[in-house]
Amino acid sequence: MTSSNDAGAPSARTLVKRYRHLAHYDRETIDAILDAMPVAHIAYLHEGQPIVTPTLQWREGDRVYWHGAAKGRMMRATEGADVCLTVSILDGLVLARSAFNFNVNHRSAMLFGKAEAVTDPKEKIRLLTRLVNGFAPDQWDKLRPATESEITATAILSLKIEEASAKVRSGPPEDNESDYAHPVWAGVLPIRLTVGAPEPDPRNSPGVAAPDLSGYSIG
Amino acid sequence: MTSSNDAGAPSARTLVKRYRHLAHYDRETIDAILDAMPVAHIAYLHEGQPIVTPTLQWREGDRVYWHGAAKGRMMRATEGADVCLTVSILDGLVLARSAFNFNVNHRSAMLFGKAEAVTDPKEKIRLLTRLVNGFAPDQWDKLRPATESEITATAILSLKIEEASAKVRSGPPEDNESDYAHPVWAGVLPIRLTVGAPEPDPRNSPGVAAPDLSGYSIG
Ligand SMILES: Cc1cc2nc3c(=O)[nH]c(=O)nc-3n(C[C@H](O)[C@H](O)[C@H](O)COP(=O)(O)OP(=O)(O)OC[C@H]3O[C@@H](n4cnc5c(N)ncnc54)[C@H](O)[C@@H]3O)c2cc1C
Ligand SMILES: Cc1cc2nc3c(=O)[nH]c(=O)nc-3n(C[C@H](O)[C@H](O)[C@H](O)COP(=O)(O)OP(=O)(O)OC[C@H]3O[C@@H](n4cnc5c(N)ncnc54)[C@H](O)[C@@H]3O)c2cc1C
Ligand code: HEM
Ligand code: HEM
Repeated sequence: MTSSNDAGAPSARTLVKRYRHLAHYDRETIDAILDAMPVAHIAYLHEGQPIVTPTLQWREGDRVYWHGAAKGRMMRATEGADVCLTVSILDGLVLARSAFNFNVNHRSAMLFGKAEAVTDPKEKIRLLTRLVNGFAPDQWDKLRPATESEITATAILSLKIEEASAKVRSGPPEDNESDYAHPVWAGVLPIRLTVGAPEPDPRNSPGVAAPDLSGYSIG
Repeated sequence: MTSSNDAGAPSARTLVKRYRHLAHYDRETIDAILDAMPVAHIAYLHEGQPIVTPTLQWREGDRVYWHGAAKGRMMRATEGADVCLTVSILDGLVLARSAFNFNVNHRSAMLFGKAEAVTDPKEKIRLLTRLVNGFAPDQWDKLRPATESEITATAILSLKIEEASAKVRSGPPEDNESDYAHPVWAGVLPIRLTVGAPEPDPRNSPGVAAPDLSGYSIG
């Protein structure tokens, strides 16, 4: 997390104005947020109505990708369209001495741009392999192979990471200097995502070896 | 979770079409999702561009509320405007026998409507008290009292819960019947939000009593 404050906003609309001391525009900070949290919320227009759909995203280099039904509303409405993709992580509740200074610790990234379709079937398979293996290393090759019609039914869209900003807050509350003497407890209630033990499908064939998911973390 | 499938969609645009067997339109299911997860993602238009902003929401009866800077872009762009408010909870990663049937366990709610401003200062204070006490019971009265200018600087918007849908997935993968014999481990990697021990602000006055936050859960 190198840059902070106003320097480096890639465009007027990505310049953080509220709580601007939390702003970051460097790729290191943005990529770390994208890589920590696979759930994105994507905003787009559909028949004049703004819609936000929760969707998995994954990053490779300068792009984030998402997938869904080639015939679905979300994928059709976002293809070639201006979208806003936001990833947010809640890290805690910040209890201050005044209600006004309550806050949450968080990391969030907001990306703007035109969503582009990945059309080459080989490239689609490569990207879907990464999606699967990003959760469960080497799992793709153990699965019942994907069929051509499954790949055709699957659309993949991507967004270049170029018009993006991040906001990151951590640590104790920031109260007005005159409020520190007010005799009330202040501090942080930490919140985080945890991964539990894998739950085998009751219909698993006897003797199938469980994949090693111990390396997977989220948030 | 009573209703499922197509019955009960309050409008054409809230009719779930993809994975429609996961759809719910009853208030019990929708309210439970809103109450479990304070983080919402709100989509709105700003200068023709769809934007999605992560924001805290809280529910009272038939309405969800959110707050922010009266002068801020998000609050000004959403006031009186058509918005889409989505709350989503990731409950796990579902590993299937085919890549195509990988999924996530989740609960999500999507609300459409026009955002309305709460203008009466007394009502604003009442709602902000609920926001604060919803995280930390009885905390409001212990805080340095809110000032008139703080209340003026704070905008509160709300959305009536009337055009809404939910999707809920839980349990093991649903593979194609012919894939169950494929010899690969399938199951669920559970994911959940956990609350840690409160971290006191190093600048706390000596002897201030920690609030009882043990009742707080999220997700
Ligand atoms: C978990 C969570 C909960 C939040 N709860 C609240 C809340 O209850 N009330 C509230 O007012 N705000 C909340 N925020 C902050 C909120 O996301 C916005 O940053 C804030 O509301 C200001 O929005 P704006 O459009 O008015 O800001 P502006 O500063 O005018 O936005 C200008 C530009 O700054 C960048 N930007 C703005 N917000 C973010 C962001 N979150 N992440 C990355 N870039 C951003 C974007 O490029 C945007 O186009 C929360 C954020 C998180 C992550
Ligand atoms: C954590 C998480 C991760 C997800 N990951 C993916 C992914 O990687 N790829 C993917 O395609 N989908 C994903 N989904 C599902 C996604 O949110 C959409 O439901 C799906 O993409 C279909 O969108 P659509 O607009 O084409 O659906 P349609 O069924 O055409 O939408 C019509 C209406 O159904 C309702 N609806 C749609 N989605 C939801 C929802 N999530 N919650 C409540 N109501 C809804 C709304 O009222 C909407 O207006 C994910 C959902 C969650 C919660
Ligand atoms: C880690 C791997 C994957 C995960 C976690 C995942 C998750 C999801 C989720 C959550 C949905 C939305 C379901 C809903 O609407 O409720 C979805 C839809 C979809 N996925 Fe995946 N997916 C993965 C890999 C794949 C792969 C490899 C393919 C193709 C071979 C694929 C094809 C599709 C298609 C076509 C849809 C749309 C289904 C429809 O709306 O009818 N997915 N996926
Ligand atoms: C549980 C209680 C509360 C929490 C968790 C909370 C959280 C937040 C968060 C996360 C933001 C966004 C900060 C950012 O842009 O990065 C915010 C903004 C704001 N909050 Fe709260 N808040 C709470 C209560 C209140 C109360 C009671 C008031 C008024 C008395 C208030 C007034 C404001 C205002 C005015 C802003 C906009 C600040 C700005 O953009 O300049 N908040 N709040």
